[in-house]
Amino acid sequence: MVDDRVRVGVVGLGRMGKFHAANLAGRVPLASLVRIVDADEGIAGDVSRRLRGVEWSTDYADLLEDSEIEAVVVASPTPLHADMVEAAAEAGKHVFCEKPISLEVERTYEVVEAAREAGIKLQVGFHRRFDPDYRRAWEKIGAGEVGEVYLFRTSLRDMQAPGFDYIKGSGGFFADVTLHDFDAARWLIGEISEVTAFGAALSDPVGFEEAGDIDNAVVAIRFTGGALGVIDNSRVAGYGYECSSEVMGSKATLRVDNHRRASVETLTRDSSHQDYVSDFVERFADAYAAGLESFVRAVREDRDPEVSGADAAAAFVLAKAAERSYRERRTVRLINETKDGEVFYREAE
Amino acid sequence: MVDDRVRVGVVGLGRMGKFHAANLAGRVPLASLVRIVDADEGIAGDVSRRLRGVEWSTDYADLLEDSEIEAVVVASPTPLHADMVEAAAEAGKHVFCEKPISLEVERTYEVVEAAREAGIKLQVGFHRRFDPDYRRAWEKIGAGEVGEVYLFRTSLRDMQAPGFDYIKGSGGFFADVTLHDFDAARWLIGEISEVTAFGAALSDPVGFEEAGDIDNAVVAIRFTGGALGVIDNSRVAGYGYECSSEVMGSKATLRVDNHRRASVETLTRDSSHQDYVSDFVERFADAYAAGLESFVRAVREDRDPEVSGADAAAAFVLAKAAERSYRERRTVRLINETKDGEVFYREAE
Amino acid sequence: MVDDRVRVGVVGLGRMGKFHAANLAGRVPLASLVRIVDADEGIAGDVSRRLRGVEWSTDYADLLEDSEIEAVVVASPTPLHADMVEAAAEAGKHVFCEKPISLEVERTYEVVEAAREAGIKLQVGFHRRFDPDYRRAWEKIGAGEVGEVYLFRTSLRDMQAPGFDYIKGSGGFFADVTLHDFDAARWLIGEISEVTAFGAALSDPVGFEEAGDIDNAVVAIRFTGGALGVIDNSRVAGYGYECSSEVMGSKATLRVDNHRRASVETLTRDSSHQDYVSDFVERFADAYAAGLESFVRAVREDRDPEVSGADAAAAFVLAKAAERSYRERRTVRLINETKDGEVFYREAE
Amino acid sequence: MVDDRVRVGVVGLGRMGKFHAANLAGRVPLASLVRIVDADEGIAGDVSRRLRGVEWSTDYADLLEDSEIEAVVVASPTPLHADMVEAAAEAGKHVFCEKPISLEVERTYEVVEAAREAGIKLQVGFHRRFDPDYRRAWEKIGAGEVGEVYLFRTSLRDMQAPGFDYIKGSGGFFADVTLHDFDAARWLIGEISEVTAFGAALSDPVGFEEAGDIDNAVVAIRFTGGALGVIDNSRVAGYGYECSSEVMGSKATLRVDNHRRASVETLTRDSSHQDYVSDFVERFADAYAAGLESFVRAVREDRDPEVSGADAAAAFVLAKAAERSYRERRTVRLINETKDGEVFYREAE
Repeated sequence: MVDDRVRVGVVGLGRMGKFHAANLAGRVPLASLVRIVDADEGIAGDVSRRLRGVEWSTDYADLLEDSEIEAVVVASPTPLHADMVEAAAEAGKHVFCEKPISLEVERTYEVVEAAREAGIKLQVGFHRRFDPDYRRAWEKIGAGEVGEVYLFRTSLRDMQAPGFDYIKGSGGFFADVTLHDFDAARWLIGEISEVTAFGAALSDPVGFEEAGDIDNAVVAIRFTGGALGVIDNSRVAGYGYECSSEVMGSKATLRVDNHRRASVETLTRDSSHQDYVSDFVERFADAYAAGLESFVRAVREDRDPEVSGADAAAAFVLAKAAERSYRERRTVRLINETKDGEVFYREAE
Repeated sequence: MVDDRVRVGVVGLGRMGKFHAANLAGRVPLASLVRIVDADEGIAGDVSRRLRGVEWSTDYADLLEDSEIEAVVVASPTPLHADMVEAAAEAGKHVFCEKPISLEVERTYEVVEAAREAGIKLQVGFHRRFDPDYRRAWEKIGAGEVGEVYLFRTSLRDMQAPGFDYIKGSGGFFADVTLHDFDAARWLIGEISEVTAFGAALSDPVGFEEAGDIDNAVVAIRFTGGALGVIDNSRVAGYGYECSSEVMGSKATLRVDNHRRASVETLTRDSSHQDYVSDFVERFADAYAAGLESFVRAVREDRDPEVSGADAAAAFVLAKAAERSYRERRTVRLINETKDGEVFYREAE
Repeated sequence: MVDDRVRVGVVGLGRMGKFHAANLAGRVPLASLVRIVDADEGIAGDVSRRLRGVEWSTDYADLLEDSEIEAVVVASPTPLHADMVEAAAEAGKHVFCEKPISLEVERTYEVVEAAREAGIKLQVGFHRRFDPDYRRAWEKIGAGEVGEVYLFRTSLRDMQAPGFDYIKGSGGFFADVTLHDFDAARWLIGEISEVTAFGAALSDPVGFEEAGDIDNAVVAIRFTGGALGVIDNSRVAGYGYECSSEVMGSKATLRVDNHRRASVETLTRDSSHQDYVSDFVERFADAYAAGLESFVRAVREDRDPEVSGADAAAAFVLAKAAERSYRERRTVRLINETKDGEVFYREAE
Repeated sequence: MVDDRVRVGVVGLGRMGKFHAANLAGRVPLASLVRIVDADEGIAGDVSRRLRGVEWSTDYADLLEDSEIEAVVVASPTPLHADMVEAAAEAGKHVFCEKPISLEVERTYEVVEAAREAGIKLQVGFHRRFDPDYRRAWEKIGAGEVGEVYLFRTSLRDMQAPGFDYIKGSGGFFADVTLHDFDAARWLIGEISEVTAFGAALSDPVGFEEAGDIDNAVVAIRFTGGALGVIDNSRVAGYGYECSSEVMGSKATLRVDNHRRASVETLTRDSSHQDYVSDFVERFADAYAAGLESFVRAVREDRDPEVSGADAAAAFVLAKAAERSYRERRTVRLINETKDGEVFYREAE
């Protein structure tokens, strides 16, 4: 019995790190989880016990020095991402990194360049690209079923705002939330030339003002190809997690609906009820496993990952442009250029 | 200005009579409401006041003697239907009669025959045939979109049982409820050769046993053409009024969904809500007006009504067969023959 | 029999005029259609024949001089609206006018003022306010079910662009299409302080450029109360007519879904089909009748109409602000003030 | 690193066997696939190559003699099930067996007894019990949300009939198709006291008559608790695979809807499209993995499996009762008794 599975280590065992580790341990056929790392000894040991006693330590260096390990999943706090990816690249390990790579555009580009030079695969955690529904929409668009695109419309909303501690370290609303929609827009429709963002702090104006942030936003975009787009985001949708999109075109209009928790409807006196999913982890459980599967397959088959470091950088530049648009109350224009098959964005002067 | 509207009188101003009168007074363009009759003076006068002072009286004879009146809507209590239709036929008035014509098969056939001999139009109030959704399904089936029919499935459910007073005079569950489904089955699919009915009194076993009736039923049917059918009915669905159907065939399957009160969805923490309609009057408001419009048009254009007296008799014979099946715990077979373009049913020996 | 119906005349028998006339003749209980006018003799005579020989002429003056007539429905070509409303006001007739009153803000305000001085009721044809679904959403918002509003999102899309002849006389995309959404936004949510519009001509860039117009737009709005809003519009949605909205708030989120032609689903090999409505007349058939009913009721009961001339002017000012925003590529701010219970808008300097 | 996974072998590498093997190899965290067996050398070797070179052979004895193996998945042709389960029981291996255990009631009970005596876990492949949607409905019913049950309605339909070779060995329509609905009915609602079945061969009457079978059926059931039930089944639904259910009760009505292939809607001129799933493997992919997970967990934790051999026997007795009802054109009554916590069914005299 030849074990051709990709041997993976995970660093950072917060909510997403635990989730990735459990997936790698039993739901990603081509992956083998061999080591987990967290600075907190208690957490690392506990996760190990729940995952069949997988090797664990509190030191990232142990993971990088483990010659058996081919790939690293970086799920540590955001400020550590950039250095950890670079260290992994130096150690010759492939990297799956949670977004964002960094909260600075320059630093993001440095890390992308470092991975490129090291010749490692670098995939970033844009889960929506691996969701079966969005995938199907993407295939249909690629097959020309929509014709020329006129309008892209998408909603991404959280049920409930995280604490202000999280928000202060989040890189801001647009980098934390809208980022995903910018990636989806580029992936489904194409490159973007203009961003105009509108924001408001409505659920707790005082708290958000202190944090220097907002809780609701509308972003109008213009694609290089001429189509218009509109994104709406919220941290406080209340009813549940929402991720739904629409692509209107000359031949057809596609809709990716929001998910219900189950295809079960409860009808009581005069009204019917359906349960909503409560967050992105519940909504995208399958997509997370599929994203890891795609990553280890890219490693094993020596192919480019389906979401590159440049894609992560592009979404981040767009998110920062949205923030500038919101703060300066003006449309921000963007320029992109293709280098070695990758697209690089910057704001126009 | 030539007034070619059909001059109509209404007898019986209970819930349906009032509803028909209001429709005739302002929502059926080809009809003109000229007289209303109810044994209760207070009711008749009150309805008249709300309908622009239309002539009223407490005596059905006034209506029959009014030479200006061309057609009568009979919405009186069921036991009066047969005699009132016959009297109208004798007086040469066309008749729109609420179902059922009678609670006796023989008497039903007598009335149908009387109308035929008098040469008047007799239409029975099977509203579903005039509902835009069911109409569209019927057109699609007629156009061959479904191909050969394999299965017909339909649900008709009331939210809440009427009082036992009503139930005791209703002719029994199958004649009062299932009757509509038998008419829909014949109209949409074709003639029926076998009926097997199952019933139960579940919401109030003692009360229903005293009334000699049931509150839930399942009826399996076999069509002459070979297709199978299944009807489910309830008096106590609780969540609202339900009327939905499915036709499965060799080429396609059609579904007529139940209606919501409005295309408005309310999403609250974790669940979405939609309001149901509460009864057949709310659900079929448009169909009632359309049924009357079809009737007065048949009168004015001297055409056969879209639902004949023989149709009413057929549904009634089928309902009585279902009742016999339920009581005798056996399948009841049916024979039908066509006379002068009309189909007449009887139980096989 | 006392006939208390409001005696109405219709001027302009294009598509909407014919539709209003037929409604007034048979589907609006409190209205009596007594005269129709169209400059084209053939059309006027033909419509009269189909409506029971109602009086007709080719001269609007005949209608204004008819002392029996209490109210006029103005459905003539847009350039005639303003003068015809003023003439009716002078003649003391109440007016239901198709939108827009005028393609000039100043002129719109003059007409509103003329109606006010003459003491007549002036209602403008914003049908969405009378649609049962939107009505229900409006009631729920009014009852506080949504809580504080965070986001209003609405889509209004036509299936197919009208000819360029129509477009050139339409007052431009924003005045012809977005106008309805501005009225809905004000009615459902409240007053608006900022408009930023984005447009594109995508289906036929050359044709639209020649016509100086666009075929797709996204409009971001900010409400005086702080909520954000986004409107998307298209002339070329292809799949059908769309009118759907969403209101996200602190307590709940409401959705008014687009309508299907019928609640009938056809399932064929591997896919299910549902028919869309094709245009606003099909979608809002009931709303048109309800709007006229509300108007004649306001006349008979001497109440303010549910949509005033000032409402029409407000939507028009907002539409012109959107156009300026689009042309000047900047956000346009708006100021409103209340006078005698009516809200009047103008652009901020 | 302690490997506590349950070591499983699979015998029979047809469609379901391959599917189970792939699940055990990478999507069931608590299972480890260690050996596969198929009489066809080519198939066994090929599946092994695709599953990381897992041990394979053509002889079931190799699997039973492998002392490392704790559990066997029996996915061989139906006629081999009973003997293979007994052999595994003798060898002390736990068994997950595809349904049915046997095409004979007596033999089914013998096998159930053999497993009981050997003290092994025997789980039968009723996947619907592990589907997240049905699971949620089951939880809600268990929590009393539905109140007293009045009606259970369920549809199970295949898109396309299998070949007559398959049909002749299938045990007949009711044992092959309706069996699943009987299990669902017992699981969701409770025990069954009466079955009345109606069948027809409509898509290919000649072929089905030769095969002595049918392609469409309606089955009316009565539960011991009084509720009514109705099942409809088809081999030739054409539009896709259907598995949907409804439970109507005194407090609420639950619906488990059929699944679409993706939450993607494509809107083209005048109609919207959604893709259906094509068969049970696509529909229940997650449920299959969850069923295996539940099985190995029962093994590891030494608990009773969630679906017992007695459950399989009960569904089979009900299916045979339906067949007798159909052939003898009469209602068949059933008696059940509980022994050691398990329910055993037989037909009443």
